[in-house]
Amino acid sequence: MSEQNGLEAFGQEWLPYLEAEMRAVLATGLGAAERHYQMMHYHMGWVDESFQPGEFGTGKRIRPLLCLMACEAVGGDPATALPAAAALEILHNFSLIHDDIEDGDETRRHRSTLWTIWGVPQAINAGDGMFALAFAALLGSKAQGVTNDRVVAALERFTACCTALTEGQHLDMWFEEQDRVEVADYLRMIEGKTASLLATSLSIGALIGGATAPVDDALYCFGRHLGLAFQIQDDILGIWGDPAVTGKAAGNDILRRKKSLPLLYALGHPTVGPRLVERISQPLDEEDLPAIYELLALAKAQAFAEEQMHSHHQAGLDGLAEALGDRALTSPLHALADELLLRRT
Amino acid sequence: MSEQNGLEAFGQEWLPYLEAEMRAVLATGLGAAERHYQMMHYHMGWVDESFQPGEFGTGKRIRPLLCLMACEAVGGDPATALPAAAALEILHNFSLIHDDIEDGDETRRHRSTLWTIWGVPQAINAGDGMFALAFAALLGSKAQGVTNDRVVAALERFTACCTALTEGQHLDMWFEEQDRVEVADYLRMIEGKTASLLATSLSIGALIGGATAPVDDALYCFGRHLGLAFQIQDDILGIWGDPAVTGKAAGNDILRRKKSLPLLYALGHPTVGPRLVERISQPLDEEDLPAIYELLALAKAQAFAEEQMHSHHQAGLDGLAEALGDRALTSPLHALADELLLRRT
Repeated sequence: MSEQNGLEAFGQEWLPYLEAEMRAVLATGLGAAERHYQMMHYHMGWVDESFQPGEFGTGKRIRPLLCLMACEAVGGDPATALPAAAALEILHNFSLIHDDIEDGDETRRHRSTLWTIWGVPQAINAGDGMFALAFAALLGSKAQGVTNDRVVAALERFTACCTALTEGQHLDMWFEEQDRVEVADYLRMIEGKTASLLATSLSIGALIGGATAPVDDALYCFGRHLGLAFQIQDDILGIWGDPAVTGKAAGNDILRRKKSLPLLYALGHPTVGPRLVERISQPLDEEDLPAIYELLALAKAQAFAEEQMHSHHQAGLDGLAEALGDRALTSPLHALADELLLRRT
Repeated sequence: MSEQNGLEAFGQEWLPYLEAEMRAVLATGLGAAERHYQMMHYHMGWVDESFQPGEFGTGKRIRPLLCLMACEAVGGDPATALPAAAALEILHNFSLIHDDIEDGDETRRHRSTLWTIWGVPQAINAGDGMFALAFAALLGSKAQGVTNDRVVAALERFTACCTALTEGQHLDMWFEEQDRVEVADYLRMIEGKTASLLATSLSIGALIGGATAPVDDALYCFGRHLGLAFQIQDDILGIWGDPAVTGKAAGNDILRRKKSLPLLYALGHPTVGPRLVERISQPLDEEDLPAIYELLALAKAQAFAEEQMHSHHQAGLDGLAEALGDRALTSPLHALADELLLRRT
């Protein structure tokens, strides 16, 4: 309970500053280009479809919190990492805008996705604008007194992460066209698509906070395993989560034949695999879902995925202990890792 | 003639190094993600649709040449600006990949556009990958001995340019939905979409070459006016150019009601304007083109656009003279500006 309270207190203290930092970066352009920025504000959960201000789902702001916490955990002032934290959250949101177009997803956080309202061309471009502004945010670190040497080091990791994100997304889409994907290849994909950004968030926060290289590396390792665990959890929720809470249609991942860990594991199962292959090589609609869920249960796919998730969770906590020593257990990073993997929705 | 030869000699000396720099940055990833990079190589003109190497249209590499020339013009070694030059050309090509999707263009440089071959989702993502790798290229300046202070200064301009590009593209698409766009608003749009990147190419080259702030500003000014002139030329070619040479379908810009300078000027013409408005507010197909070309001729739209183009060309040359003094006339930058505006195809 004390860790939970520590985590909440951390978020309550820093999230308002983070939002202010992001709003300043995504400030509305003058005159005719105003709508370009308003679309970004819609995606960020700050305005409605008519660009009227309001309180909408903003996501959990996990990545920037990890960045700020890592900065503090290594003895830095989280305020110096606010521009980097804003950059990481803006980058994450850019990738969501494009992922929604690429995956044809019409809903996110219980709202219409950007492309369904303003069309694919403007949505691609609004995402590109946010991509550029993520770099602008990170360059804003100078105003917090971060040296150019550290800004360049942070930008190197940030840029490598951007490349990894697109590699991961490439594999994700490419795998959907393949009949069979090995679990090992799948793990490589989520490493690029999810783990890289979480690890980079921690690493950049630590870097700005003045961490030594071994501590920075151990926090990267923590973030990487946390990211793998988080994505596997996401896959589990994509199949067995409650649509009313996740905001995603039930069985959508299966109907799209999304290559998630539980499905890939079941497809490789010696007895269930061939039956599942036959099932999903036919055209699919919602009526086919119960039979597919039954096959997944027979293969114990959910149990396998949960075991993998817990294993990465533990490896992540080991990395955290290496980075922070005795302070690891009472760190809000520890609490955040637990909270992420306790969500059951 | 001597300037033309100087320009050719400059390109012949530096383009092979530029291509090598870009190929290193866009190096094929290992294993499963290989196709992600191969799509970029296709767009760059290095491979065919089956990823077999060959010689295809690569574009004119104008932006990186401007960068390298600016570096040399202020007394720097162009080799130190190669990573930045690669970054600018990769950024330009990223924007073309996304523009082609957003505009629905199926052909570029006489070849199928990326999205028509591998689909919109993978094309968006390949563009994003190139966007990220443009930043990676610029960060590679460190290997050429460029200080972190100059790398950060270059990144600030580069990032501002990225934002301007998306603002310009936003306005371009937004204007297409409007009945009427003023010439002044149109000029603001091409400032973001075209002039900004040319100006930034010169500015970053000068910055890496060690230019003083006034020289850097004057070269930015040269690039800005050159960019405006270049885009107005492009608009003229989009209406009156030869499809066999431009690689674009004849009258395509008119059929799409693209708000280009000649069309906007004609729409604002006191007598021709209302007739043109009536014409293009109906559904359009190729049979309507001759009548529209006749109205554009009546409004003297081509002459007006050419006058504007030459005016910006002259303002650009004034900026070049301010930056380089007596050396302006014999600079390959002068020759390049002339060559760009002598194309009649």
